Amino acid sequence: MDPDLSALDSFLAEADADGYLIDADSSDSDQRYLSGFDAHDPFFTLYTGDTHLLVSGLEYGRARKESRADSVSRYSDYDYQYGSPEERYRMLAEFLADHGVSSLAVPARFPLASADGLRERGVGVEAETDDVITGIRATKTDAEIDHIREAQRANEKAMARAEELLREATVEDGLLRFDGRALTSERVRREIEIALLREDCALDETIVACGADAADPHDDGSGPLEAGETIVIDIFPKSKETHYLADMTRTFSVGEPSARAREWYELTAEAKEAALAAVEPGATGEDVHDAACDVYEEAGLPTLRDDPATETGFIHSTGHGIGLDVHELPRLAPGGAELKPGHVITVEPGLYDPTVGGIRIEDLVVVTEGGYENLTDYPEEFVI
Amino acid sequence: MDPDLSALDSFLAEADADGYLIDADSSDSDQRYLSGFDAHDPFFTLYTGDTHLLVSGLEYGRARKESRADSVSRYSDYDYQYGSPEERYRMLAEFLADHGVSSLAVPARFPLASADGLRERGVGVEAETDDVITGIRATKTDAEIDHIREAQRANEKAMARAEELLREATVEDGLLRFDGRALTSERVRREIEIALLREDCALDETIVACGADAADPHDDGSGPLEAGETIVIDIFPKSKETHYLADMTRTFSVGEPSARAREWYELTAEAKEAALAAVEPGATGEDVHDAACDVYEEAGLPTLRDDPATETGFIHSTGHGIGLDVHELPRLAPGGAELKPGHVITVEPGLYDPTVGGIRIEDLVVVTEGGYENLTDYPEEFVI
Repeated sequence: MDPDLSALDSFLAEADADGYLIDADSSDSDQRYLSGFDAHDPFFTLYTGDTHLLVSGLEYGRARKESRADSVSRYSDYDYQYGSPEERYRMLAEFLADHGVSSLAVPARFPLASADGLRERGVGVEAETDDVITGIRATKTDAEIDHIREAQRANEKAMARAEELLREATVEDGLLRFDGRALTSERVRREIEIALLREDCALDETIVACGADAADPHDDGSGPLEAGETIVIDIFPKSKETHYLADMTRTFSVGEPSARAREWYELTAEAKEAALAAVEPGATGEDVHDAACDVYEEAGLPTLRDDPATETGFIHSTGHGIGLDVHELPRLAPGGAELKPGHVITVEPGLYDPTVGGIRIEDLVVVTEGGYENLTDYPEEFVI
Repeated sequence: MDPDLSALDSFLAEADADGYLIDADSSDSDQRYLSGFDAHDPFFTLYTGDTHLLVSGLEYGRARKESRADSVSRYSDYDYQYGSPEERYRMLAEFLADHGVSSLAVPARFPLASADGLRERGVGVEAETDDVITGIRATKTDAEIDHIREAQRANEKAMARAEELLREATVEDGLLRFDGRALTSERVRREIEIALLREDCALDETIVACGADAADPHDDGSGPLEAGETIVIDIFPKSKETHYLADMTRTFSVGEPSARAREWYELTAEAKEAALAAVEPGATGEDVHDAACDVYEEAGLPTLRDDPATETGFIHSTGHGIGLDVHELPRLAPGGAELKPGHVITVEPGLYDPTVGGIRIEDLVVVTEGGYENLTDYPEEFVI
């Protein structure tokens, strides 16, 4: 199923531009999305209502087979001679003229040399800063939701492997041990990575953070894991085949945690339920964030909403869109926009304090006509 | 040890620009190199002879500790208000003015919106298409060479694991089996990935290609591995810690290969030795490529040098620089520039024909004052 690009049509009409051009490789998610093509080297995608690709001869066959483009041209169609940047702009200008394009809207991060090269050849080029494609990407098709669902299944297997290690660990002098050695953040992280590789997923980072490390949401965690301390495990794998991501966090304590940590866990489970209950079309990202903040503030705990200077309590937003990028629109945060069916979002309230540790519980859900569907199938068990 | 940026100084003097500016995250290797900083979100690096960073408050502490910058500023130093692109350009223009910069050279792929935003504020911005930083990156410091050496040690462990699987495989109906199941490209690739994870390396791709797959240098390989067929294994891991890559290829046959494949293997080993013998300061990348081509052509085999239309024989270049990117300067190919001490390059001749298979042998070497040092410590054994 093709993406709904009507918002791009409206944008181009309003901007009075003939087309939208991306010059990037497919590590740029807007490029991957608009072209439906996966390539390591930069190529051109022109949208004029139809989608036209311009690629090197090496990529031509694959682009015709695999991309979502209505037409694919190759460099040799324009007698392109490798080596000179000027040749590249000449070719590009001719390609645009062939599609009747003399004025372009381009992404904010469009390459300057290409823009200047085109301008010198009389093509109007204006950078847009509305992130129009990123905005369109927020609403997922059924196929995209299935891709995310699949990545989430892999994620659950990796989380299960991590939980298994924690459950099988023994405790010595307050530290976890497994297989005769200290069980560290690094070892658990490696087993998560291996479990994901077996599911054909990759990941750049994984958080396995214990105690004071867990109290800093930006700390990946390192060193020996401790009994009775909070252990935050946050995994966001990307399918190597589809390139879509999933995201889930669970918090564990091996053995009895502090009374405070127990209380915070219950409160965070409650904040997550409250936030989920607020997810429905028409609600805003800010509404969902407010629902989580309400739970914490009613319990007398600090939030960034209540105290922008606080360094403990609920010190991040409630969630974010996810898809080809781990952080996409919409944001579940102050100013977060209206939720629409097809938005895939994380809901992940948490509490942090170096003297207590960190607690975060994160589910992945898709907004539906009637509310939401939770894509997460993993228990919430704190003390194991 | 800091990189030698004198070529950038000369470039700026010639271009009559006050400074060089990069606006990118550190997945851009030029940005990582010039800043010495690792960040997921875009930040600014200004070079004026000294190196100045402009980063968000979130990154400020880490940038001061970890980057190679002479000074680090943060957005709040310029009263930056999040949300408006105009604010970003205003901040950037003030940051440039603080460093006495009113004209900039920038990379070809510098973001258009930032360039236009600065031009509107009176800053001269010109895209350079000489890839000046990429050129500087070709010559490695001792520390960089050590990083590559370390990644190569991990690479050798992964190759050993792959070879072990091939050696332990049994043959049934001409196909390799291991652990009661068909041994496929995919299974070997996964074990390579796991071996690299254990060495704290990551990789995007690995080639494990057999028979006709191996005859296409762009094919990653798939499906069951066959006895008596050429199996090309090409691994290019990246250290997660240093971000430097290594690269090595070996070709195996489990059991007796065809006489043709045996002959091609010997010839390729000879081409590699001839190419290596040509590596020294003052020789060009083209000289090294020519040495490999000579061996093949003398044996009556087609090369791209001899026949640009050939689809069999030696159908790629002899090698490439490697460092923060898997393909860097210099190129060991027609037009390849002069080799200099500190260049780290691959030397990887090969022969391809769907009726014979693929053969490639690849070592990783550093150019030294006296010639080269081979960074590869792995045997060449074809039939196992």
